[in-house]
Amino acid sequence: MHKVIYDTDPGIDDAIALVFQARHPHIDLLGITTVFGNADIDTTTANALYLASRFCADVPVVRGAAQPLKRPTPAPIPHIHGHDALGDIARPEAVTVREDGRAAHRFIVETVRANPGEVTLLAVGPLTNLALALQEAPEIAALVREVVVMGGAFGFNGDLDNVTPTAEANAHSDPHAADIVFGAPWKVSIVGLDVTHATIMTTAFLASVRDSAGDAGRFVWDVSRFYERFHSDDGMTRGIYAHDYSAAAFVVARELFTTRGGPVCVLTDGIAAGMTVQKPASMRAPAPDWDARPSCDACVAVDADAVLDLFARTLRA
Amino acid sequence: MHKVIYDTDPGIDDAIALVFQARHPHIDLLGITTVFGNADIDTTTANALYLASRFCADVPVVRGAAQPLKRPTPAPIPHIHGHDALGDIARPEAVTVREDGRAAHRFIVETVRANPGEVTLLAVGPLTNLALALQEAPEIAALVREVVVMGGAFGFNGDLDNVTPTAEANAHSDPHAADIVFGAPWKVSIVGLDVTHATIMTTAFLASVRDSAGDAGRFVWDVSRFYERFHSDDGMTRGIYAHDYSAAAFVVARELFTTRGGPVCVLTDGIAAGMTVQKPASMRAPAPDWDARPSCDACVAVDADAVLDLFARTLRA
Repeated sequence: MHKVIYDTDPGIDDAIALVFQARHPHIDLLGITTVFGNADIDTTTANALYLASRFCADVPVVRGAAQPLKRPTPAPIPHIHGHDALGDIARPEAVTVREDGRAAHRFIVETVRANPGEVTLLAVGPLTNLALALQEAPEIAALVREVVVMGGAFGFNGDLDNVTPTAEANAHSDPHAADIVFGAPWKVSIVGLDVTHATIMTTAFLASVRDSAGDAGRFVWDVSRFYERFHSDDGMTRGIYAHDYSAAAFVVARELFTTRGGPVCVLTDGIAAGMTVQKPASMRAPAPDWDARPSCDACVAVDADAVLDLFARTLRA
Repeated sequence: MHKVIYDTDPGIDDAIALVFQARHPHIDLLGITTVFGNADIDTTTANALYLASRFCADVPVVRGAAQPLKRPTPAPIPHIHGHDALGDIARPEAVTVREDGRAAHRFIVETVRANPGEVTLLAVGPLTNLALALQEAPEIAALVREVVVMGGAFGFNGDLDNVTPTAEANAHSDPHAADIVFGAPWKVSIVGLDVTHATIMTTAFLASVRDSAGDAGRFVWDVSRFYERFHSDDGMTRGIYAHDYSAAAFVVARELFTTRGGPVCVLTDGIAAGMTVQKPASMRAPAPDWDARPSCDACVAVDADAVLDLFARTLRA
């Protein structure tokens, strides 16, 4: 079993990744912590409460950071995720889950301490909550089982076409936090654009899930309509990138991913702020800014068909 | 015919690229301008005089910049190119060519003005001389036929394993100059590590050139022994990267390369200084730091076998 705290800024692909976790038999969701990112913190928290009410009503929802550690809060992106950041779908269900009273980073610290060596932090938004948890209680680094991050990009997949020519959105939204998280002495695996851009839920795939996976399948279809229209402007195969779901899949099926080890720094200033840079373990030249940091595993390749099949099978089960 | 000014910091692979140019029937070398880089300016200039004396005694050799525009001069790298930066080979021949009295950037300005629309600047070291020429006479940008640069890297070939985790050596040695050159309104083609790391002169290839291409072939073999020992520590196929020669090949055989268009910025500060970042023409998101700059062509793929065959054929002819 994987005891998971899901740190998230829902967000359409965040919602799809949550449905997967709620349905997967080997994931025990200990909590959902929210963060600004795909929308402001009020919106992402309201969305998390809605998603928990519909798919995992026993999981606490905990409000997190409203802004990055140092940089200005990014502008909203309603053209990607919709005005409500969940694809502007109708939401018939009542919201039954109420916010946990704690701050997200406190919840992370307390839950990790209560489950030493057992908690996986699955973080798919800006890494502000994780950085705040580390700042408040650095010793949790030794108590966490693993950190799995959707974020960053390492240049294995050519054109990024993300938020800047060098940066993926999550890392760009709070590069200082990402640099803290990637530099801390815990086990970090990074699922970045190199593999998420290779894992596309096509319209046909989504329709198949819709028609075979009950309420969860219909939700994934409904919520992805807006996101698919955004992506179709990009000239890509009709469908959506499985950004956040890819990181959730990594938690339970890391054998479907190829990783490269080496310390990772995040550029925090200048025109390339938010860029994630790994020094590969194979590189000979000294690089003092990297050499003092722990190694992270960055995903460089993925068996995309198997990752998509895992999603469909899990929702149908 | 290609009228070429070869801006260079010889350097072993620089020397190999010069031999190719001296032998190629469609290259008319107008001058060799030197720059610090693989060694200090005294050493690279002495090497250029030696190379010109041996292979193209009618070509002027002009001393250029001794240091970068703003950053400190890089440390010497005798472990790569040898103490004399030409592989520490015996040099029996007398040096007959004397330095042109001008500064390299003045020579560039005057030669470009004298040959409007005709000069290709082939630059395979730090771009300091070209930046100084632009600063002194910005109007030359409109008079140059093309600038072909060996430098930079754009992430199409995985591990860089160069001077830092983000930067190729030439761009790193004077990032301010590179940023000026890539931002000027002239036609720039960039032959970076993405393709030079794919073009390997193996020991067998070099031996074949040695045995079939007379004095030029023997020189290429002799001068590459030291460089090959350095590279063999890297676990690569025994041989050498054809860094600078690849850019010379691009001048006469660009059809062997695949390029990507888009403006290029060079990071000038911080841990990623010297990194070359292109905004691909296909990218939708606005990126103000790139959008105001002219497009450059960056090499992303190469027919390495054909590039190597071109070298062997040219030296044998």
